[in-house]
Amino acid sequence: MRVFPAALERLTEQFARLPGIGGKTAQRLAFHMLEMPMAQAEEFAEAILQAKHTVHLCPHCQNLTDREICTICDDEGRDRDVICVVAEPKDVIAMERAREFNGLYHVLHGVISPLNHVGPDDIRIRELLTRIGRGTIREVIMATNPDTEGEATAMYISRLLRPMEVRVTRLAYGIPVGSQLEFADEVTLLRALQGRRDI
Amino acid sequence: MRVFPAALERLTEQFARLPGIGGKTAQRLAFHMLEMPMAQAEEFAEAILQAKHTVHLCPHCQNLTDREICTICDDEGRDRDVICVVAEPKDVIAMERAREFNGLYHVLHGVISPLNHVGPDDIRIRELLTRIGRGTIREVIMATNPDTEGEATAMYISRLLRPMEVRVTRLAYGIPVGSQLEFADEVTLLRALQGRRDI
Repeated sequence: MRVFPAALERLTEQFARLPGIGGKTAQRLAFHMLEMPMAQAEEFAEAILQAKHTVHLCPHCQNLTDREICTICDDEGRDRDVICVVAEPKDVIAMERAREFNGLYHVLHGVISPLNHVGPDDIRIRELLTRIGRGTIREVIMATNPDTEGEATAMYISRLLRPMEVRVTRLAYGIPVGSQLEFADEVTLLRALQGRRDI
Repeated sequence: MRVFPAALERLTEQFARLPGIGGKTAQRLAFHMLEMPMAQAEEFAEAILQAKHTVHLCPHCQNLTDREICTICDDEGRDRDVICVVAEPKDVIAMERAREFNGLYHVLHGVISPLNHVGPDDIRIRELLTRIGRGTIREVIMATNPDTEGEATAMYISRLLRPMEVRVTRLAYGIPVGSQLEFADEVTLLRALQGRRDI
């Protein structure tokens, strides 16, 4: 027997589709949504649509932005001859928190992972090569996570860059091996930037 | 420095306002939302609005419904002289799973809890008294959670009902003391219904 209204079941299902949200949690969130003031729920729905419609990738660095070109690529005060390559947009935040790096970024949106069927063509490596092919980049800092896949991705890209006239460096192992970049503290990231070495 | 687009920050904040969702999880969910197909995100936003606009309380039992009168109150096959009083809509689901009870429900939407500033007037006790005051109810089964607050709420309501000509019963302690009604299995709930006693 169906006891809950269909619309409530549908909302619960929507929550349950989110990563890390189980059935009981989804139900709890759906109930919470019903109890909150109408204006607040509308704000939530609006925030989803607003984010989907305004946020896209910066054509240069592939980071998320709501402007034509992202604020970092558009900032004339930043070194335009160094690119820091990261796996995800959240890693840009982590790097910026260290307040040590003043160049540009390149967001791969993933790492090479044969087990998850992610190959070199599935992440934004081609766009990186195009940027470096223009010849104005002096150094590329590989700042993917210090785990197996991040390491392999860094090595793969560094091999592609070997024929080009660009210094390729890797963050020093100040960052604890096996951990996630986004959880690193500022000081560790600063040490990692300062101790970076050629690969 | 603001690195993420404002719309993404706003979506993250919306997720972070939900109960049990911390900052990191909120960010992960917002990113996931950006990565999902547009149609799927629109479906999510629509599900929120749909639920808010169609779901309301049944004027009789106070359970959630999208119809004028809920499916249980509207079902002519159910005993109209027994009311099972529960704290939350999800408890109705738990009771229905036991397939033993064939009467009507009354959802209090909470329990009396002085520590959380919830008094008798903050939950739907008045509506229950009105229903019973009409004189057609033969028995009221108190099925609030078997914890301190659920027990106190059951006792409070049973005292209010004492002057009325109605049998007031409490679920037997087949349900493990100190646990939550929604996690009880069908057999335990069935035993609890069968062993109910006068209070």
